[in-house]
Amino acid sequence: MTTVQATNGHGTRADRGAAVGPDELVERLRAQATRYHSEHDFHVRMNAGELSPAQIRGWVANRFCYQEAIPRKDAAILGNCPDREVRQRWIRRITDHDGTDTTEGGIEAWLRLGEACGVPREEMEDGRHIVPTVRFSVDAYVTFARTRPWLEAVASSLTELFAPGLMAERLAAFEKHYTWIERDGLDYFRNRLHQAPRDSEHALEIVKERCRTAEQQDAAVAALAFKNDVLWSMMDGIDKAYPA
Amino acid sequence: MTTVQATNGHGTRADRGAAVGPDELVERLRAQATRYHSEHDFHVRMNAGELSPAQIRGWVANRFCYQEAIPRKDAAILGNCPDREVRQRWIRRITDHDGTDTTEGGIEAWLRLGEACGVPREEMEDGRHIVPTVRFSVDAYVTFARTRPWLEAVASSLTELFAPGLMAERLAAFEKHYTWIERDGLDYFRNRLHQAPRDSEHALEIVKERCRTAEQQDAAVAALAFKNDVLWSMMDGIDKAYPA
Repeated sequence: MTTVQATNGHGTRADRGAAVGPDELVERLRAQATRYHSEHDFHVRMNAGELSPAQIRGWVANRFCYQEAIPRKDAAILGNCPDREVRQRWIRRITDHDGTDTTEGGIEAWLRLGEACGVPREEMEDGRHIVPTVRFSVDAYVTFARTRPWLEAVASSLTELFAPGLMAERLAAFEKHYTWIERDGLDYFRNRLHQAPRDSEHALEIVKERCRTAEQQDAAVAALAFKNDVLWSMMDGIDKAYPA
Repeated sequence: MTTVQATNGHGTRADRGAAVGPDELVERLRAQATRYHSEHDFHVRMNAGELSPAQIRGWVANRFCYQEAIPRKDAAILGNCPDREVRQRWIRRITDHDGTDTTEGGIEAWLRLGEACGVPREEMEDGRHIVPTVRFSVDAYVTFARTRPWLEAVASSLTELFAPGLMAERLAAFEKHYTWIERDGLDYFRNRLHQAPRDSEHALEIVKERCRTAEQQDAAVAALAFKNDVLWSMMDGIDKAYPA
């Protein structure tokens, strides 16, 4: 048996050093914004009004794979979290997406967005349009939440720090450029404008308070980088499947 | 390397055969009542008023290990369940135990029960009284919910079919025999009298509707038998640790 030289991109960071204060940790996390999928060419073209209806439909149908997975991802975090107070707040994310007896959730809002774009509900629900890259990326995210320490999974959710900017830009772009989409269909984006900041504030509070060692802080930054990779990989898959 | 003869108690049932109808499946599940921990000698003595304050305290402190794990168990089921409608109802179990901003949950009610019995809150929360057998049994249950198909985990919850009888008997026994415990402390038992039937009704509905093949039905019965083993093993551990 030959010896394999093990390398680990997250474990051998050249810049690994002493732990930093909470504010500097937040700066390190916010610096990941440059890798957020808002910078992906497909999003840039979307917000510039350059996508065709077929491209918008392809995006909306594929992105549903992610929307549908979110409650399972958050339940996995809940299931790994031993802190009752954290769970009491985190659970709100699940009802926000799944909905309740009396409130529509984000999944239903996304299905309505799809319908407004001309993708029948059953075509989103049966996943016929979802391309393998998107499915694998989403599965990687759910698996991360199930198998990694819950604190890293919380850190991975911090892409929500960057979401409101993209969401506001997208909402404006859709209202301006894609007037063939009924405006009622855009409720999902409107809801996320206030949900995302509330959620990211809670996640950031947890990460600031609990990631005190250099190792924990590196793991938090790596988790957020991983999540950026998930979102970016999804956009790559969609871009390939629905070329200009 | 020698060949190991694999045996699996659940997989080699002599009575494995054709699938049965939903009502017969319910009968098979209900037949597991004879193995419910209400039959354990420690419970029999508890309900006969024969336990000492030290034994009651030992039981209440150890049982907290289970109470505290329930939301993680239910979140694990939620995280493995792809059906939004099931999730929308199942999530109630988590808030019932964890509580919300405005409602006390079962964990808090159990802490108050412990205090009423004379176990300080911090002694329950830090787990100092929990014996290994109890911890291992509870961990086995959470691991089951995390790693087995969600439908089996749902079936394993069906000990709640048998819970109201034990809960009513226990409430009466505590009010009659253990008058040194403040009655306000017994709210947990009172709450479960109506929560358990509502929960088991939902779980039974799911199992009846979805366990159609003989294999699925055997797996559901085996899951419930496993859960009975978990509860029984906990009682064995408590019985050993707090002898008469």
